[in-house]
Amino acid sequence: MKNGRKHAFRRNAHQRGRQDPSNFRRQGAEQGGVILYGWHTVTAALANPARHIRKLLATENALRRLADEGIRPPVEPELVRPDAIAARLSPDAVHQGLFAEADPLPSPALTDLSAGGIVLVLDQITDPHNVGAILRTAAAFAVAAIVTTARHSPEATGGRAKSASGALEWVPIVIVQNLSRALAEMKEQGFLVVGLDSDGGDDLAATALSSPLALVLGAEGKGLRQGTRAICDRLARLDLPGAIKSLNVSNAAALALYVASRAVKV
Amino acid sequence: MKNGRKHAFRRNAHQRGRQDPSNFRRQGAEQGGVILYGWHTVTAALANPARHIRKLLATENALRRLADEGIRPPVEPELVRPDAIAARLSPDAVHQGLFAEADPLPSPALTDLSAGGIVLVLDQITDPHNVGAILRTAAAFAVAAIVTTARHSPEATGGRAKSASGALEWVPIVIVQNLSRALAEMKEQGFLVVGLDSDGGDDLAATALSSPLALVLGAEGKGLRQGTRAICDRLARLDLPGAIKSLNVSNAAALALYVASRAVKV
Repeated sequence: MKNGRKHAFRRNAHQRGRQDPSNFRRQGAEQGGVILYGWHTVTAALANPARHIRKLLATENALRRLADEGIRPPVEPELVRPDAIAARLSPDAVHQGLFAEADPLPSPALTDLSAGGIVLVLDQITDPHNVGAILRTAAAFAVAAIVTTARHSPEATGGRAKSASGALEWVPIVIVQNLSRALAEMKEQGFLVVGLDSDGGDDLAATALSSPLALVLGAEGKGLRQGTRAICDRLARLDLPGAIKSLNVSNAAALALYVASRAVKV
Repeated sequence: MKNGRKHAFRRNAHQRGRQDPSNFRRQGAEQGGVILYGWHTVTAALANPARHIRKLLATENALRRLADEGIRPPVEPELVRPDAIAARLSPDAVHQGLFAEADPLPSPALTDLSAGGIVLVLDQITDPHNVGAILRTAAAFAVAAIVTTARHSPEATGGRAKSASGALEWVPIVIVQNLSRALAEMKEQGFLVVGLDSDGGDDLAATALSSPLALVLGAEGKGLRQGTRAICDRLARLDLPGAIKSLNVSNAAALALYVASRAVKV
Protein backbone atom coordinates (compact mmCIF):
# COMPACT_ATOMS: atom_id res chain seq x y z
CA MET A 1 0.00 0.00 0.00
CA LYS A 2 2.55 2.55 1.16
CA ASN A 3 4.96 1.55 -1.57
CA GLY A 4 2.18 1.80 -4.11
CA ARG A 5 1.35 5.28 -2.99
CA LYS A 6 4.97 6.38 -3.16
CA HIS A 7 5.43 4.95 -6.60
CA ALA A 8 2.27 6.69 -7.77
CA PHE A 9 3.52 9.97 -6.36
CA ARG A 10 6.82 9.67 -8.11
CA ARG A 11 5.33 8.66 -11.42
CA ASN A 12 2.88 11.47 -11.15
CA ALA A 13 5.57 14.02 -10.34
CA HIS A 14 7.55 12.73 -13.29
CA GLN A 15 4.65 13.13 -15.71
CA ARG A 16 3.83 16.58 -14.44
CA GLY A 17 7.50 17.45 -14.70
CA ARG A 18 7.36 16.68 -18.37
CA GLN A 19 4.15 18.53 -18.98
CA ASP A 20 4.97 21.61 -17.01
CA PRO A 21 8.65 21.96 -16.32
CA SER A 22 8.18 25.41 -14.82
CA ASN A 23 6.84 23.74 -11.65
CA PHE A 24 10.21 22.20 -11.01
CA ARG A 25 13.66 23.39 -10.32
CA ARG A 26 16.55 21.38 -11.59
CA GLN A 27 19.19 22.65 -9.21
CA GLY A 28 22.64 21.35 -9.85
CA ALA A 29 22.04 20.25 -13.42
CA GLU A 30 24.24 23.10 -14.61
CA GLN A 31 27.01 21.91 -12.29
CA GLY A 32 26.97 18.44 -13.78
CA GLY A 33 23.98 16.92 -12.01
CA VAL A 34 24.04 14.45 -9.17
CA ILE A 35 26.83 11.99 -8.44
CA LEU A 36 25.61 8.61 -7.15
CA TYR A 37 27.79 5.68 -6.14
CA GLY A 38 27.63 2.47 -4.16
CA TRP A 39 25.44 -0.55 -4.80
CA HIS A 40 22.27 0.47 -2.91
CA THR A 41 22.37 4.07 -4.02
CA VAL A 42 22.92 3.40 -7.73
CA THR A 43 20.56 0.42 -8.05
CA ALA A 44 17.82 2.39 -6.26
CA ALA A 45 18.35 5.15 -8.84
CA LEU A 46 18.28 2.65 -11.72
CA ALA A 47 14.96 1.28 -10.40
CA ASN A 48 13.36 4.72 -10.19
CA PRO A 49 11.48 5.63 -13.38
CA ALA A 50 11.60 9.32 -12.47
CA ARG A 51 15.42 9.33 -12.30
CA HIS A 52 17.20 10.26 -15.52
CA ILE A 53 20.63 8.60 -15.61
CA ARG A 54 23.10 10.39 -17.83
CA LYS A 55 26.07 8.11 -17.46
CA LEU A 56 26.76 4.80 -15.71
CA LEU A 57 30.18 3.35 -14.92
CA ALA A 58 30.45 -0.24 -13.72
CA THR A 59 33.26 -2.66 -12.99
CA GLU A 60 33.25 -6.19 -14.40
CA ASN A 61 32.11 -7.56 -11.02
CA ALA A 62 29.32 -5.01 -10.73
CA LEU A 63 28.13 -5.77 -14.28
CA ARG A 64 27.98 -9.47 -13.41
CA ARG A 65 26.04 -8.73 -10.22
CA LEU A 66 23.58 -6.51 -12.12
CA ALA A 67 23.01 -9.35 -14.59
CA ASP A 68 22.67 -11.91 -11.77
CA GLU A 69 20.00 -9.82 -10.11
CA GLY A 70 18.18 -9.18 -13.40
CA ILE A 71 18.75 -5.41 -13.26
CA ARG A 72 18.69 -3.80 -16.70
CA PRO A 73 20.04 -0.24 -16.55
CA PRO A 74 18.20 2.32 -18.70
CA VAL A 75 21.55 3.42 -20.17
CA GLU A 76 24.38 1.27 -21.48
CA PRO A 77 26.94 0.85 -18.66
CA GLU A 78 30.52 1.77 -19.45
CA LEU A 79 32.87 -1.02 -18.35
CA VAL A 80 35.71 0.43 -16.28
CA ARG A 81 38.36 -0.69 -13.83
CA PRO A 82 37.68 0.02 -10.11
CA ASP A 83 40.35 2.72 -9.97
CA ALA A 84 38.62 4.69 -12.74
CA ILE A 85 35.65 5.10 -10.36
CA ALA A 86 37.84 5.70 -7.32
CA ALA A 87 39.60 8.53 -9.16
CA ARG A 88 36.29 10.44 -9.38
CA LEU A 89 35.53 10.17 -5.66
CA SER A 90 37.09 11.07 -2.34
CA PRO A 91 39.73 8.59 -1.15
CA ASP A 92 37.52 6.92 1.49
CA ALA A 93 34.48 6.46 -0.77
CA VAL A 94 33.20 2.86 -0.96
CA HIS A 95 31.80 2.68 -4.50
CA GLN A 96 31.30 -1.10 -4.84
CA GLY A 97 31.94 -0.87 -8.57
CA LEU A 98 29.01 1.40 -9.44
CA PHE A 99 29.02 5.10 -10.28
CA ALA A 100 26.34 7.19 -11.97
CA GLU A 101 25.80 10.76 -13.07
CA ALA A 102 22.15 11.70 -13.09
CA ASP A 103 19.73 14.59 -13.27
CA PRO A 104 18.40 15.70 -9.90
CA LEU A 105 14.90 14.38 -9.34
CA PRO A 106 12.00 16.69 -10.13
CA SER A 107 11.17 18.75 -7.06
CA PRO A 108 7.43 19.02 -6.32
CA ALA A 109 5.90 22.44 -5.71
CA LEU A 110 4.96 23.39 -2.13
CA THR A 111 1.31 23.49 -3.20
CA ASP A 112 1.47 19.76 -3.99
CA LEU A 113 2.22 18.81 -0.37
CA SER A 114 -0.87 19.81 1.57
CA ALA A 115 -2.77 16.57 0.95
CA GLY A 116 -1.60 15.18 4.30
CA GLY A 117 1.14 13.45 6.20
CA ILE A 118 4.39 14.80 7.55
CA VAL A 119 6.85 17.11 5.83
CA LEU A 120 10.33 17.48 7.32
CA VAL A 121 11.79 20.99 7.03
CA LEU A 122 15.56 21.40 7.41
CA ASP A 123 16.82 24.81 8.52
CA GLN A 124 20.46 25.01 7.40
CA ILE A 125 21.48 21.47 8.25
CA THR A 126 24.69 20.96 6.32
CA ASP A 127 26.66 18.00 7.67
CA PRO A 128 26.47 15.33 4.93
CA HIS A 129 26.37 12.43 7.44
CA ASN A 130 23.42 14.03 9.19
CA VAL A 131 21.61 14.97 5.98
CA GLY A 132 22.09 11.44 4.64
CA ALA A 133 20.84 9.80 7.84
CA ILE A 134 17.84 12.16 8.01
CA LEU A 135 16.92 11.39 4.41
CA ARG A 136 17.06 7.67 5.07
CA THR A 137 14.96 7.93 8.23
CA ALA A 138 12.50 10.18 6.39
CA ALA A 139 12.11 7.41 3.79
CA ALA A 140 11.61 4.87 6.58
CA PHE A 141 8.79 6.98 8.02
CA ALA A 142 7.27 7.63 4.58
CA VAL A 143 7.41 11.41 4.98
CA ALA A 144 5.63 13.28 2.18
CA ALA A 145 8.69 15.44 1.41
CA ILE A 146 11.75 17.20 2.74
CA VAL A 147 11.82 20.98 2.37
CA THR A 148 15.19 22.69 2.42
CA THR A 149 17.10 25.54 0.87
CA ALA A 150 19.09 25.07 -2.32
CA ARG A 151 22.49 25.41 -0.67
CA HIS A 152 21.74 22.77 1.92
CA SER A 153 19.86 20.26 -0.21
CA PRO A 154 20.58 16.55 0.29
CA GLU A 155 21.43 16.20 -3.38
CA ALA A 156 24.17 18.77 -2.88
CA THR A 157 25.51 17.04 0.24
CA GLY A 158 24.02 13.75 1.41
CA GLY A 159 23.83 12.17 -2.02
CA ARG A 160 27.56 12.40 -2.37
CA ALA A 161 28.16 11.02 1.13
CA LYS A 162 26.29 7.81 0.30
CA SER A 163 24.80 7.96 3.82
CA ALA A 164 21.34 8.21 2.29
CA SER A 165 21.70 4.70 0.83
CA GLY A 166 19.08 5.02 -1.89
CA ALA A 167 16.63 7.15 0.11
CA LEU A 168 16.98 10.02 -2.37
CA GLU A 169 14.85 7.96 -4.74
CA TRP A 170 12.00 7.70 -2.21
CA VAL A 171 11.66 11.10 -0.60
CA PRO A 172 10.71 14.06 -2.77
CA ILE A 173 12.93 17.06 -2.06
CA VAL A 174 11.43 20.53 -2.28
CA ILE A 175 14.09 23.16 -2.72
CA VAL A 176 13.14 26.69 -1.71
CA GLN A 177 15.01 29.97 -1.83
CA ASN A 178 13.64 31.35 1.43
CA LEU A 179 12.62 29.02 4.24
CA SER A 180 10.51 31.51 6.23
CA ARG A 181 8.50 32.36 3.12
CA ALA A 182 8.03 28.65 2.38
CA LEU A 183 6.79 28.01 5.93
CA ALA A 184 4.37 30.95 5.69
CA GLU A 185 3.02 29.51 2.46
CA MET A 186 2.64 26.08 4.07
CA LYS A 187 0.73 27.60 7.00
CA GLU A 188 -1.66 29.22 4.52
CA GLN A 189 -2.23 25.79 3.00
CA GLY A 190 -3.25 24.35 6.36
CA PHE A 191 0.01 22.93 7.68
CA LEU A 192 0.60 22.87 11.43
CA VAL A 193 4.23 24.05 11.68
CA VAL A 194 6.10 22.65 14.71
CA GLY A 195 9.73 23.59 15.35
CA LEU A 196 11.94 21.21 17.34
CA ASP A 197 13.79 23.09 20.05
CA SER A 198 15.47 21.60 23.13
CA ASP A 199 14.21 24.64 25.08
CA GLY A 200 10.73 24.42 23.54
CA GLY A 201 7.75 24.97 25.84
CA ASP A 202 5.87 21.78 24.99
CA ASP A 203 6.87 18.13 25.06
CA LEU A 204 6.34 16.94 21.47
CA ALA A 205 4.75 13.70 22.69
CA ALA A 206 2.16 15.73 24.65
CA THR A 207 1.51 18.24 21.86
CA ALA A 208 -1.69 18.02 19.82
CA LEU A 209 -0.50 17.31 16.27
CA SER A 210 -2.56 17.38 13.09
CA SER A 211 -2.07 16.60 9.43
CA PRO A 212 -0.60 18.07 7.28
CA LEU A 213 2.28 18.56 9.70
CA ALA A 214 5.58 20.33 9.08
CA LEU A 215 8.37 19.35 11.52
CA VAL A 216 11.17 21.90 11.43
CA LEU A 217 14.71 20.99 12.52
CA GLY A 218 17.62 23.38 12.99
CA ALA A 219 21.33 22.79 12.72
CA GLU A 220 23.19 21.32 15.68
CA GLY A 221 24.58 23.93 18.02
CA LYS A 222 22.81 26.79 16.27
CA GLY A 223 19.27 25.41 16.40
CA LEU A 224 16.44 27.11 14.52
CA ARG A 225 17.13 30.57 13.15
CA GLN A 226 15.17 33.44 14.71
CA GLY A 227 13.04 33.96 11.59
CA THR A 228 12.23 30.25 11.49
CA ARG A 229 11.27 30.13 15.19
CA ALA A 230 9.04 33.17 14.82
CA ILE A 231 6.93 31.54 12.12
CA CYS A 232 6.38 28.18 13.88
CA ASP A 233 2.92 27.54 15.34
CA ARG A 234 4.57 25.67 18.20
CA LEU A 235 8.07 25.07 19.54
CA ALA A 236 8.36 21.60 21.05
CA ARG A 237 11.11 19.66 22.77
CA LEU A 238 11.80 15.95 23.03
CA ASP A 239 11.55 14.98 26.70
CA LEU A 240 14.65 13.01 27.60
CA PRO A 241 15.34 11.44 30.99
CA GLY A 242 19.15 11.75 30.98
CA ALA A 243 21.82 14.33 31.69
CA ILE A 244 22.22 15.49 28.09
CA LYS A 245 19.24 17.22 26.49
CA SER A 246 20.54 17.95 23.00
CA LEU A 247 20.86 15.13 20.48
CA ASN A 248 22.61 14.68 17.20
CA VAL A 249 20.17 16.28 14.73
CA SER A 250 19.51 13.08 12.77
CA ASN A 251 18.71 11.25 16.04
CA ALA A 252 16.39 14.10 17.02
CA ALA A 253 14.72 13.82 13.60
CA ALA A 254 14.23 10.06 14.09
CA LEU A 255 12.59 10.52 17.49
CA ALA A 256 10.43 13.41 16.31
CA LEU A 257 9.23 11.36 13.33
CA TYR A 258 8.47 8.40 15.58
CA VAL A 259 6.43 10.54 17.96
CA ALA A 260 4.69 12.44 15.17
CA SER A 261 3.90 9.40 13.05
CA ARG A 262 2.02 7.86 15.98
CA ALA A 263 -0.12 11.01 16.26
CA VAL A 264 -0.54 11.79 12.54
CA LYS A 265 -1.51 9.21 9.95
CA VAL A 266 1.31 8.93 7.40
CA MET B 1 17.16 13.11 40.67
CA LYS B 2 18.59 11.48 37.57
CA ASN B 3 21.59 13.77 37.61
CA GLY B 4 22.12 13.06 41.28
CA ARG B 5 22.08 9.35 40.60
CA LYS B 6 24.55 9.68 37.74
CA HIS B 7 26.90 11.83 39.77
CA ALA B 8 26.74 9.32 42.60
CA PHE B 9 27.55 6.49 40.21
CA ARG B 10 30.54 8.26 38.83
CA ARG B 11 31.89 9.28 42.20
CA ASN B 12 31.37 5.78 43.42
CA ALA B 13 33.13 4.27 40.41
CA HIS B 14 35.98 6.69 40.95
CA GLN B 15 36.40 5.72 44.60
CA ARG B 16 36.21 2.04 43.87
CA GLY B 17 38.66 2.56 41.03
CA ARG B 18 41.15 3.86 43.53
CA GLN B 19 40.57 1.13 46.05
CA ASP B 20 40.56 -1.78 43.67
CA PRO B 21 42.12 -0.92 40.33
CA SER B 22 41.93 -4.53 39.18
CA ASN B 23 38.21 -4.05 38.54
CA PHE B 24 38.95 -1.53 35.86
CA ARG B 25 40.70 -1.49 32.56
CA ARG B 26 42.52 1.61 31.49
CA GLN B 27 42.58 0.95 27.78
CA GLY B 28 44.41 3.49 25.73
CA ALA B 29 46.46 4.94 28.58
CA GLU B 30 49.56 3.31 27.11
CA GLN B 31 48.82 4.97 23.79
CA GLY B 32 48.72 8.42 25.34
CA GLY B 33 45.24 8.43 26.81
CA VAL B 34 42.20 10.19 25.46
CA ILE B 35 42.20 13.32 23.31
CA LEU B 36 39.36 15.72 24.04
CA TYR B 37 38.67 19.01 22.28
CA GLY B 38 35.89 21.51 21.75
CA TRP B 39 34.12 23.61 24.37
CA HIS B 40 31.37 21.18 25.44
CA THR B 41 33.60 18.14 25.41
CA VAL B 42 36.46 19.63 27.40
CA THR B 43 34.36 21.57 29.93
CA ALA B 44 32.27 18.42 30.58
CA ALA B 45 35.53 16.58 31.28
CA LEU B 46 36.78 19.39 33.56
CA ALA B 47 33.52 19.18 35.53
CA ASN B 48 33.77 15.42 35.99
CA PRO B 49 35.54 14.49 39.25
CA ALA B 50 36.26 10.99 37.93
CA ARG B 51 38.17 12.33 34.90
CA HIS B 52 41.92 12.74 35.35
CA ILE B 53 43.17 15.52 33.07
CA ARG B 54 46.85 15.18 32.22
CA LYS B 55 47.29 18.28 30.14
CA LEU B 56 45.10 21.22 29.12
CA LEU B 57 45.79 23.63 26.27
CA ALA B 58 43.71 26.79 25.96
CA THR B 59 43.75 29.87 23.78
CA GLU B 60 43.51 33.35 25.28
CA ASN B 61 39.82 33.56 24.31
CA ALA B 62 39.06 30.17 25.82
CA LEU B 63 40.86 31.11 29.06
CA ARG B 64 38.77 34.27 29.30
CA ARG B 65 35.57 32.30 28.70
CA LEU B 66 36.53 29.73 31.35
CA ALA B 67 37.08 32.59 33.83
CA ASP B 68 33.81 34.28 32.81
CA GLU B 69 31.90 31.09 33.46
CA GLY B 70 33.67 30.45 36.76
CA ILE B 71 35.26 27.20 35.58
CA ARG B 72 38.45 26.35 37.47
CA PRO B 73 40.36 23.57 35.69
CA PRO B 74 41.95 20.95 37.97
CA VAL B 75 45.25 21.43 36.12
CA GLU B 76 46.96 24.67 35.14
CA PRO B 77 46.01 25.43 31.50
CA GLU B 78 48.85 26.04 29.08
CA LEU B 79 48.22 29.23 27.09
CA VAL B 80 48.68 28.55 23.37
CA ARG B 81 47.80 30.06 20.02
CA PRO B 82 44.87 28.49 18.14
CA ASP B 83 47.16 26.95 15.52
CA ALA B 84 49.08 25.03 18.21
CA ILE B 85 45.85 23.15 18.96
CA ALA B 86 44.90 22.81 15.29
CA ALA B 87 48.28 21.22 14.58
CA ARG B 88 47.39 18.33 16.91
CA LEU B 89 44.04 17.61 15.25
CA SER B 90 42.66 16.72 11.83
CA PRO B 91 42.25 19.73 9.51
CA ASP B 92 38.45 19.98 9.87
CA ALA B 93 38.38 19.72 13.68
CA VAL B 94 36.54 22.57 15.43
CA HIS B 95 38.42 22.90 18.73
CA GLN B 96 37.04 26.24 19.99
CA GLY B 97 40.32 26.93 21.75
CA LEU B 98 40.27 23.98 24.14
CA PHE B 99 42.28 20.76 23.99
CA ALA B 100 42.91 18.19 26.72
CA GLU B 101 44.77 14.94 27.16
CA ALA B 102 43.19 12.76 29.83
CA ASP B 103 43.12 9.27 31.26
CA PRO B 104 40.25 7.15 29.99
CA LEU B 105 37.46 6.99 32.58
CA PRO B 106 37.36 3.95 34.86
CA SER B 107 35.33 1.23 33.19
CA PRO B 108 32.88 -0.53 35.56
CA ALA B 109 32.84 -4.32 35.71
CA LEU B 110 29.95 -6.18 34.05
CA THR B 111 28.85 -7.40 37.48
CA ASP B 112 28.18 -3.79 38.53
CA LEU B 113 25.49 -3.31 35.89
CA SER B 114 22.73 -5.70 36.84
CA ALA B 115 21.00 -3.31 39.27
CA GLY B 116 18.57 -2.26 36.55
CA GLY B 117 17.92 -0.01 33.60
CA ILE B 118 19.12 -0.30 30.02
CA VAL B 119 22.60 -1.20 28.81
CA LEU B 120 23.46 -0.54 25.16
CA VAL B 121 25.74 -3.15 23.59
CA LEU B 122 27.62 -2.24 20.40
CA ASP B 123 28.69 -5.10 18.13
CA GLN B 124 31.56 -3.74 16.00
CA ILE B 125 30.16 -0.29 15.35
CA THR B 126 33.18 1.68 14.18
CA ASP B 127 32.11 4.86 12.38
CA PRO B 128 33.12 7.71 14.71
CA HIS B 129 30.11 9.87 13.74
CA ASN B 130 27.77 7.04 14.63
CA VAL B 131 29.59 6.09 17.84
CA GLY B 132 29.58 9.74 18.93
CA ALA B 133 25.87 10.20 18.20
CA ILE B 134 25.00 6.93 19.96
CA LEU B 135 26.97 7.94 23.03
CA ARG B 136 25.19 11.29 23.18
CA THR B 137 21.76 9.69 22.77
CA ALA B 138 22.66 7.08 25.39
CA ALA B 139 23.42 9.94 27.81
CA ALA B 140 20.10 11.57 26.90
CA PHE B 141 18.26 8.35 27.77
CA ALA B 142 20.30 7.81 30.97
CA VAL B 143 21.46 4.35 29.93
CA ALA B 144 23.33 2.52 32.69
CA ALA B 145 26.35 1.80 30.45
CA ILE B 146 27.62 1.07 26.96
CA VAL B 147 29.31 -2.30 26.46
CA THR B 148 31.68 -2.65 23.53
CA THR B 149 34.94 -4.27 22.52
CA ALA B 150 38.27 -2.56 23.08
CA ARG B 151 38.95 -1.92 19.39
CA HIS B 152 35.61 -0.24 18.84
CA SER B 153 35.32 1.73 22.07
CA PRO B 154 33.96 5.29 21.87
CA GLU B 155 37.08 6.59 23.57
CA ALA B 156 39.09 5.17 20.69
CA THR B 157 36.82 6.67 18.04
CA GLY B 158 33.92 8.91 19.09
CA GLY B 159 35.87 10.92 21.63
CA ARG B 160 38.21 12.12 18.95
CA ALA B 161 35.37 12.93 16.58
CA LYS B 162 33.80 15.35 19.08
CA SER B 163 30.37 14.03 18.01
CA ALA B 164 29.79 12.84 21.57
CA SER B 165 29.79 16.43 22.81
CA GLY B 166 30.58 15.68 26.45
CA ALA B 167 28.54 12.48 26.70
CA LEU B 168 31.67 10.44 27.44
CA GLU B 169 31.58 11.98 30.92
CA TRP B 170 28.03 10.71 31.57
CA VAL B 171 27.87 7.20 30.21
CA PRO B 172 30.10 4.53 31.76
CA ILE B 173 31.85 2.50 29.05
CA VAL B 174 32.47 -1.19 29.72
CA ILE B 175 35.20 -2.54 27.48
CA VAL B 176 35.20 -6.30 26.96
CA GLN B 177 37.48 -8.58 25.00
CA ASN B 178 34.76 -10.94 23.77
CA LEU B 179 31.23 -9.68 23.23
CA SER B 180 29.50 -13.09 23.16
CA ARG B 181 31.10 -14.03 26.47
CA ALA B 182 30.07 -10.69 27.96
CA LEU B 183 26.46 -11.20 26.82
CA ALA B 184 26.43 -14.72 28.27
CA GLU B 185 27.65 -13.31 31.57
CA MET B 186 24.97 -10.60 31.48
CA LYS B 187 22.27 -13.21 30.86
CA GLU B 188 23.47 -15.12 33.91
CA GLN B 189 23.07 -11.93 35.91
CA GLY B 190 19.45 -11.60 34.88
CA PHE B 191 19.67 -9.36 31.82
CA LEU B 192 17.10 -9.76 29.05
CA VAL B 193 19.26 -9.56 25.91
CA VAL B 194 17.45 -8.15 22.85
CA GLY B 195 19.23 -7.80 19.51
CA LEU B 196 18.05 -5.18 17.02
CA ASP B 197 17.66 -6.71 13.58
CA SER B 198 15.68 -5.31 10.66
CA ASP B 199 14.62 -8.89 9.85
CA GLY B 200 13.84 -9.68 13.51
CA GLY B 201 10.72 -11.69 14.27
CA ASP B 202 9.18 -9.29 16.79
CA ASP B 203 8.33 -5.62 16.64
CA LEU B 204 10.35 -4.07 19.49
CA ALA B 205 7.38 -1.91 20.55
CA ALA B 206 5.23 -5.07 20.93
CA THR B 207 7.94 -7.10 22.70
CA ALA B 208 7.71 -7.69 26.45
CA LEU B 209 10.78 -5.96 27.88
CA SER B 210 12.13 -6.19 31.41
CA SER B 211 14.89 -4.65 33.47
CA PRO B 212 17.86 -5.06 33.42
CA LEU B 213 17.72 -4.90 29.62
CA ALA B 214 20.62 -5.20 27.16
CA LEU B 215 19.88 -3.73 23.71
CA VAL B 216 22.38 -5.02 21.15
CA LEU B 217 23.12 -3.09 17.94
CA GLY B 218 25.17 -4.31 15.00
CA ALA B 219 27.14 -2.35 12.44
CA GLU B 220 25.37 -0.88 9.44
CA GLY B 221 25.26 -3.17 6.47
CA LYS B 222 26.69 -6.12 8.38
CA GLY B 223 24.20 -6.17 11.26
CA LEU B 224 24.74 -8.42 14.27
CA ARG B 225 27.41 -11.10 13.96
CA GLN B 226 26.22 -14.70 13.98
CA GLY B 227 27.66 -15.38 17.44
CA THR B 228 25.95 -12.29 18.81
CA ARG B 229 22.58 -13.18 17.25
CA ALA B 230 22.78 -16.71 18.65
CA ILE B 231 23.12 -15.49 22.21
CA CYS B 232 20.26 -12.95 22.16
CA ASP B 233 17.04 -13.89 24.01
CA ARG B 234 15.07 -12.08 21.31
CA LEU B 235 15.70 -10.51 17.91
CA ALA B 236 13.45 -7.52 17.37
CA ARG B 237 12.91 -5.05 14.56
CA LEU B 238 11.73 -1.46 14.54
CA ASP B 239 8.45 -1.34 12.62
CA LEU B 240 8.69 1.43 10.05
CA PRO B 241 5.91 2.52 7.71
CA GLY B 242 8.05 3.60 4.74
CA ALA B 243 9.89 2.10 1.80
CA ILE B 244 13.28 1.83 3.53
CA LYS B 245 13.52 -0.52 6.49
CA SER B 246 17.14 -0.10 7.53
CA LEU B 247 18.20 3.05 9.36
CA ASN B 248 21.48 4.69 10.14
CA VAL B 249 22.63 2.80 13.26
CA SER B 250 22.61 5.85 15.54
CA ASN B 251 19.03 6.62 14.46
CA ALA B 252 18.07 3.00 15.10
CA ALA B 253 19.68 3.28 18.55
CA ALA B 254 17.68 6.43 19.32
CA LEU B 255 14.38 4.80 18.35
CA ALA B 256 15.18 1.58 20.22
CA LEU B 257 16.06 3.55 23.36
CA TYR B 258 12.86 5.57 23.08
CA VAL B 259 10.74 2.44 22.76
CA ALA B 260 12.63 0.56 25.49
CA SER B 261 12.72 3.45 27.96
CA ARG B 262 8.91 3.64 27.84
CA ALA B 263 8.72 -0.06 28.74
CA VAL B 264 11.60 -0.26 31.22
CA LYS B 265 12.11 2.22 34.05
CA VAL B 266 15.47 3.96 33.53
